[in-house]
Amino acid sequence: MKTLAAQVITPEDLLKHWQGHRALTRNVIEAFPEKDFFEFSIGGMRTFSKMADELLAIAVPGLKGIVNKEVKPFTEGSEKLIFKAQYLEKWDEATAEINQYWEKLSIEDFSANFNLFGQYEFPIYQNILYFIDNEVHHRGQGYVYLRALGIEPPFFWER
Amino acid sequence: MKTLAAQVITPEDLLKHWQGHRALTRNVIEAFPEKDFFEFSIGGMRTFSKMADELLAIAVPGLKGIVNKEVKPFTEGSEKLIFKAQYLEKWDEATAEINQYWEKLSIEDFSANFNLFGQYEFPIYQNILYFIDNEVHHRGQGYVYLRALGIEPPFFWER
Repeated sequence: MKTLAAQVITPEDLLKHWQGHRALTRNVIEAFPEKDFFEFSIGGMRTFSKMADELLAIAVPGLKGIVNKEVKPFTEGSEKLIFKAQYLEKWDEATAEINQYWEKLSIEDFSANFNLFGQYEFPIYQNILYFIDNEVHHRGQGYVYLRALGIEPPFFWER
Repeated sequence: MKTLAAQVITPEDLLKHWQGHRALTRNVIEAFPEKDFFEFSIGGMRTFSKMADELLAIAVPGLKGIVNKEVKPFTEGSEKLIFKAQYLEKWDEATAEINQYWEKLSIEDFSANFNLFGQYEFPIYQNILYFIDNEVHHRGQGYVYLRALGIEPPFFWER
């Protein structure tokens, strides 16, 4: 078993890191023209609104499942959003909910296994890193969409 | 000061996480046709070879600076690579060097501040998370390039 003393990131650090990325993704959503957010894509990929659906369907439902130790299947877009403003509102609600659920995680939880969405059986810290990586990955794709639309994306290091 | 007991990711976890991402990025480099790796881009962005230059210029030089506590300016593309195979070779050399330098990091190092490339004064664990995030970000952009070229990228979860 790993000793707790040999570890490098605190729960507070990890939450701040995640929320910093989420703040940047919010800025990327804001940077899209309304129409392009729902319609523009490259190479048969999803629109950025569809990617945002996925990110919203992972963050709070995933963390809620982890905190409540409740394995539920992944469900995306259960609520159909049709305006960018609705996404931004949902995003802000999720920001607050993440902060609330995070407080319920104990330090031991992070190394415990959890079967995320009944599909991904990994230590919880890995599930959370995956949430973040997946968001950075898709947001990077959003940057290309913005550039292709002639729009300057937010600075990557602004969180 | 944060107590070591309240931390969630071990140095071994973080290295494995980083190297897993690097393995995926290597697969993305491999997926590009030789010509497109050096020439294709979207919306005035850099080619994927240029992004790979940046990633190579960050990983080992950044970690080496951290380990040797030696502040050096960021320098990119000091060696001009003209074939994809050279990038893959460099990538593999960097993989081994990262593993070697990583062993020299003590647990206390991760929370210490370091002025990365003389420009980014942050705790070392944040510098390393930044290396990873930056790679995921640009690799996500590489995925769009591949899709635009009609090429199926590697699965995101395969590391």
